[in-house]
Amino acid sequence: MSSPLDHLIQLLAKLPGLGPRSARRAALHLLKKREALLVPLAQAMGAAADTITRCSACGNLDVADPCAICSDPRRDASVICVVEDVADLWALERAAIFRGRYHVLGGALSALDGVGPEDLGISKLLSRIAQPEVSEVILATNATVDGQTTSHYIAERLADCSVTVTGLAHGVPVGGELDYLDDGTLGAALKARRPV
Amino acid sequence: MSSPLDHLIQLLAKLPGLGPRSARRAALHLLKKREALLVPLAQAMGAAADTITRCSACGNLDVADPCAICSDPRRDASVICVVEDVADLWALERAAIFRGRYHVLGGALSALDGVGPEDLGISKLLSRIAQPEVSEVILATNATVDGQTTSHYIAERLADCSVTVTGLAHGVPVGGELDYLDDGTLGAALKARRPV
Repeated sequence: MSSPLDHLIQLLAKLPGLGPRSARRAALHLLKKREALLVPLAQAMGAAADTITRCSACGNLDVADPCAICSDPRRDASVICVVEDVADLWALERAAIFRGRYHVLGGALSALDGVGPEDLGISKLLSRIAQPEVSEVILATNATVDGQTTSHYIAERLADCSVTVTGLAHGVPVGGELDYLDDGTLGAALKARRPV
Repeated sequence: MSSPLDHLIQLLAKLPGLGPRSARRAALHLLKKREALLVPLAQAMGAAADTITRCSACGNLDVADPCAICSDPRRDASVICVVEDVADLWALERAAIFRGRYHVLGGALSALDGVGPEDLGISKLLSRIAQPEVSEVILATNATVDGQTTSHYIAERLADCSVTVTGLAHGVPVGGELDYLDDGTLGAALKARRPV
């Protein structure tokens, strides 16, 4: 195996979802579609490395700083939705129901991985929330142990503020069948039952 | 989602093994590891597109033409191993047992996909085999219907030549348990039984 090809395969294998075998397959596929895929992908990666930056206000990834969401006057500046990762922001944007702004923590508190409040820039979030226009903070961290710990920590730090602190509802996923749901979700859905 | 990021995700989703969701994950991972992964990968792809070429003799991918295997005087030029794809050549090289040369067809005959003998450059293979130093051709196409059809076709075209034509043995994979084997493999292994 030649050295530049070897190098390419080694780097491709570092992508999430690709292992050594699928990296080899991807490299061969790229070389077969040299003009249609390999060259454009190399250029797109170079362009992304050069142009995409982290929004200094919310932590989103965009070509502009502040990002398109932070600088959009039609978005409600009074509601801030706190998410762990940019992928979570994208998921909420795909749902196209939230019209406020975001704050990307960049992870969740984790004693095991040694991630503390200072690693997530929580003091930056608090100073952002302290601005007078903010009236509500939605804690939309993942429903995992680490995500919920992070939510509780932030909620506690916000106890003295005048903002409303809310969290996402837990319950039966839309389209989900009860038979396939875990006990925790079913219990949460039952506990949070509502009048029909 | 910003446009260069969108473009990057669309291209990543075209890699085998990645879909839209894993392409988003890969793009975020790349942007998080900008200096360690994104920039080197963009460069490696550019270098691969510029330097890697197909060997005009055997169809292998390498930085040199003829490739390292074809130009290696220690490799036995009298045996040619015919494989469908460069990935198969790599697999045989990893096994490190074959010391002859290769011929990469670039696919298998397939009536369904409209792949004929001219698409695989089989006449080029035949003229290569016609050279006096070649004494054996190993047909190492996949053990699929298309692969075996291709092998039979090449074997028929070689019927008049003086070269020995062989194929890979079928049987129980090393480390395989009989209970998990399909009937076809078990039958082939039983039919080709050997004195111990």
